[in-house]
Amino acid sequence: MAETWQTAITSIQPNEVRVRGYDIAELMGSVSFGTAVYLILRGELPDEKTARLMDAILVSSIDHGATPPSVLAARTVASTGASLSQSVATGINSINRFHGGAIQDCAAQLARIIARAEGGNLVQAAAAELADMKSRGQRMSGFGHRVHTTDPRTARLFELAQQAGVAGEHVACARAVETAFADAGKPLPINVDGAIGAILADMGFDPEVMNGLFMIARTPGLVAHVAEEQACQKPMRKVVPGAHEYDGPPPRRS
Amino acid sequence: MAETWQTAITSIQPNEVRVRGYDIAELMGSVSFGTAVYLILRGELPDEKTARLMDAILVSSIDHGATPPSVLAARTVASTGASLSQSVATGINSINRFHGGAIQDCAAQLARIIARAEGGNLVQAAAAELADMKSRGQRMSGFGHRVHTTDPRTARLFELAQQAGVAGEHVACARAVETAFADAGKPLPINVDGAIGAILADMGFDPEVMNGLFMIARTPGLVAHVAEEQACQKPMRKVVPGAHEYDGPPPRRS
Amino acid sequence: MAETWQTAITSIQPNEVRVRGYDIAELMGSVSFGTAVYLILRGELPDEKTARLMDAILVSSIDHGATPPSVLAARTVASTGASLSQSVATGINSINRFHGGAIQDCAAQLARIIARAEGGNLVQAAAAELADMKSRGQRMSGFGHRVHTTDPRTARLFELAQQAGVAGEHVACARAVETAFADAGKPLPINVDGAIGAILADMGFDPEVMNGLFMIARTPGLVAHVAEEQACQKPMRKVVPGAHEYDGPPPRRS
Amino acid sequence: MAETWQTAITSIQPNEVRVRGYDIAELMGSVSFGTAVYLILRGELPDEKTARLMDAILVSSIDHGATPPSVLAARTVASTGASLSQSVATGINSINRFHGGAIQDCAAQLARIIARAEGGNLVQAAAAELADMKSRGQRMSGFGHRVHTTDPRTARLFELAQQAGVAGEHVACARAVETAFADAGKPLPINVDGAIGAILADMGFDPEVMNGLFMIARTPGLVAHVAEEQACQKPMRKVVPGAHEYDGPPPRRS
Repeated sequence: MAETWQTAITSIQPNEVRVRGYDIAELMGSVSFGTAVYLILRGELPDEKTARLMDAILVSSIDHGATPPSVLAARTVASTGASLSQSVATGINSINRFHGGAIQDCAAQLARIIARAEGGNLVQAAAAELADMKSRGQRMSGFGHRVHTTDPRTARLFELAQQAGVAGEHVACARAVETAFADAGKPLPINVDGAIGAILADMGFDPEVMNGLFMIARTPGLVAHVAEEQACQKPMRKVVPGAHEYDGPPPRRS
Repeated sequence: MAETWQTAITSIQPNEVRVRGYDIAELMGSVSFGTAVYLILRGELPDEKTARLMDAILVSSIDHGATPPSVLAARTVASTGASLSQSVATGINSINRFHGGAIQDCAAQLARIIARAEGGNLVQAAAAELADMKSRGQRMSGFGHRVHTTDPRTARLFELAQQAGVAGEHVACARAVETAFADAGKPLPINVDGAIGAILADMGFDPEVMNGLFMIARTPGLVAHVAEEQACQKPMRKVVPGAHEYDGPPPRRS
Repeated sequence: MAETWQTAITSIQPNEVRVRGYDIAELMGSVSFGTAVYLILRGELPDEKTARLMDAILVSSIDHGATPPSVLAARTVASTGASLSQSVATGINSINRFHGGAIQDCAAQLARIIARAEGGNLVQAAAAELADMKSRGQRMSGFGHRVHTTDPRTARLFELAQQAGVAGEHVACARAVETAFADAGKPLPINVDGAIGAILADMGFDPEVMNGLFMIARTPGLVAHVAEEQACQKPMRKVVPGAHEYDGPPPRRS
Repeated sequence: MAETWQTAITSIQPNEVRVRGYDIAELMGSVSFGTAVYLILRGELPDEKTARLMDAILVSSIDHGATPPSVLAARTVASTGASLSQSVATGINSINRFHGGAIQDCAAQLARIIARAEGGNLVQAAAAELADMKSRGQRMSGFGHRVHTTDPRTARLFELAQQAGVAGEHVACARAVETAFADAGKPLPINVDGAIGAILADMGFDPEVMNGLFMIARTPGLVAHVAEEQACQKPMRKVVPGAHEYDGPPPRRS
């Protein structure tokens, strides 16, 4: 039959489900969810430190409060009486070029700077690329943040990437861009999106899939926000951006 | 301002993001993604064994090949030239009462049997409830499967729930239903949805959120399928259900 | 083949497309879009006056400015860089029980009052039903409006329904409810949703499809809002409900 | 307040709703739904013949049976127990570059040929552009069809466009492309998407909005298919593309 089509992700046999060749029943209890995410997207199991890094990346992006458009759109749809899946799907539909997209944009821009350096000085290549981008009216993705000037998630991610032996030329290039910005007199720190983009690129992730990783990371946050909206708010309320207050547990340590 | 609204999920301060009170930068590298999912949905960190169980539950449902409607709908939309987020959102939009919904349906039905038993014999209560359901033309969710007769994921989940000290009356009730089915001469094994429903109920999850957990678990599978569709298939192809073949890695062990 | 499935909507033959048996090429230029909407949903062509009423119903709901959640959600998603279809789909995903749903809720409630009256006094039946609903904490759908006290669209719809010979017991019942509200000392006018619900019920529309008609009517408005958002607004702006100003053409007559 | 934003579509005053300046209550009963669609997208009311053409364009695309991916995806999602809005939104999410997109692609390609002709011979410019496109591995949109060799909808649309005095250089250019194909020995007729693209371009529609018009036209078909799926099919069935049979009314005339 001409319409047979191939898939290399998961095989289903009676009493056996295998992801990329590995028996799910064997993975259960042995590996973290982050490890399984790595496996299903990359086709191979990560080593232990890379697995830990993968979980950390997903944890870093699990939620960012009630500010992002994905949360506001999901809550607005939930307020119309929508189902959970319909509201969460709306949140996913909001993850696009300008929301979450900085991860893969930054990865692609770092790759261009690396190519431009031709093995030479990354800071010079970064400065030249930034100048070119400025002349074209473009801006570097993954640097600077409205709220966070020194995002502790960024430092932690680089530390874990270092420990996992994953930090390579994209991470080095991200630091070179930071230096180039500082040299030009307008220090712009790498933000969490930029750090993730650099690390994922060094891990060998395809840029097209990076926004997908952000969707995976953010889905739990979206579920939590929609469940909260359905439980605590009245239908058809005005979901005013920025008018929210946090009333959850105070700061605490694990 | 009258329109201020509350959220108890995540607080955002300059250079600090806290989920349910815990600093994300401290969680990164310390906890698995499954642990963070538990935290954001339940408001508290799980103990170590419960965290391992949580990861196992998410791993168990990460994908089920190209058969489910969520994958077929997501791939069909992807084939029209849709973006990644649009296609993944379509998959999420497919997770409803008849797809993924068995988890919370089963949990609710088990709760009814437990209430009916009033602390007494669960098998008798299960048999009575099954008889009543049959007379109303209803069926028990979470039992039996088209493909899997003895799903190894089920056994593994119950084992991990036992180890975590989580298995309680809903798990006991699920086994009682299995016995009642066998006593009635038509053995129907607990399937993976039923096992997850029973365990999540014993963990104290709200039934309304259970389908949300399934969405979280399945998003990586959806991202993998859409990425594969975009990379390997022609636009506007006919996505014929059941006409797929697995051409990925052969069975292997970790 | 067991999987053959039936559809009674449109037949496709080489060089011939027939909707409910009628050749589309013959309908084109002969009937309005509203007529074709009636045909595809009901299976029959309407008479001329009913067709005019149908177009009027669709025109009445084509847009309601930037206030409704469907528009706010669609614009929020558009602001993330989403495609047109993705943004419009978000607007459709917002049309649920509390947004648009008053049409079919009102139709169902009117049907209950009609049944209760058993051919007798509709105002008495309405008063009794309203009292019962109040005691259950429910409210009548389709009456009263935050903005419009005497919605001219309502009067116009009833006038056209009268002319088309369509106004029947549901329209009579809607007026009876209005009288019952006035008798009880709290006059609540029928709003446009209530009028549409009553008229569609008298036209014989299935309540389940009424929200579908609202989606059909509102899609042009959603397309216009998303196109305007993409053309005139910056990405990732805050879409604050109620903070908009109309800057289009001044009042004018056709 | 800095966050005030402008919209030029619809003004809402107590007891008054005006679309592009026109009172909706006055439009109701006076104009067709197609006329109101033109108004809301273009900002002006069309003359009578253009209004009739507009309705005809929308009628021409109201449905194409159970073959298109938008219908298959919408039905697949509906089969999971999804709501009407969720299923229709999935259909809208399927209208992208490869489904519906031929309309605006063709319009853009015709514009390029017109620019290339610089007022001179359109057939020569078309032949040159087709040769260039072939060498780049591209193909002309809006010509040829899997099922329809001489689509009667195309002829009807051109006839109505002629009558409305709307047919201009894009329609002339579409015919020139047809001639160029025939001259090259492989006659490829203009299909309905190509005809709509040419006519909408001559009407002055912005290419970005053309796919939106297709969404507007197709929403009634999607509602009809989802309602039929919910009423007539079992949950979680396999929605096999191409395995459907038409069992509606036989051919008939209005």
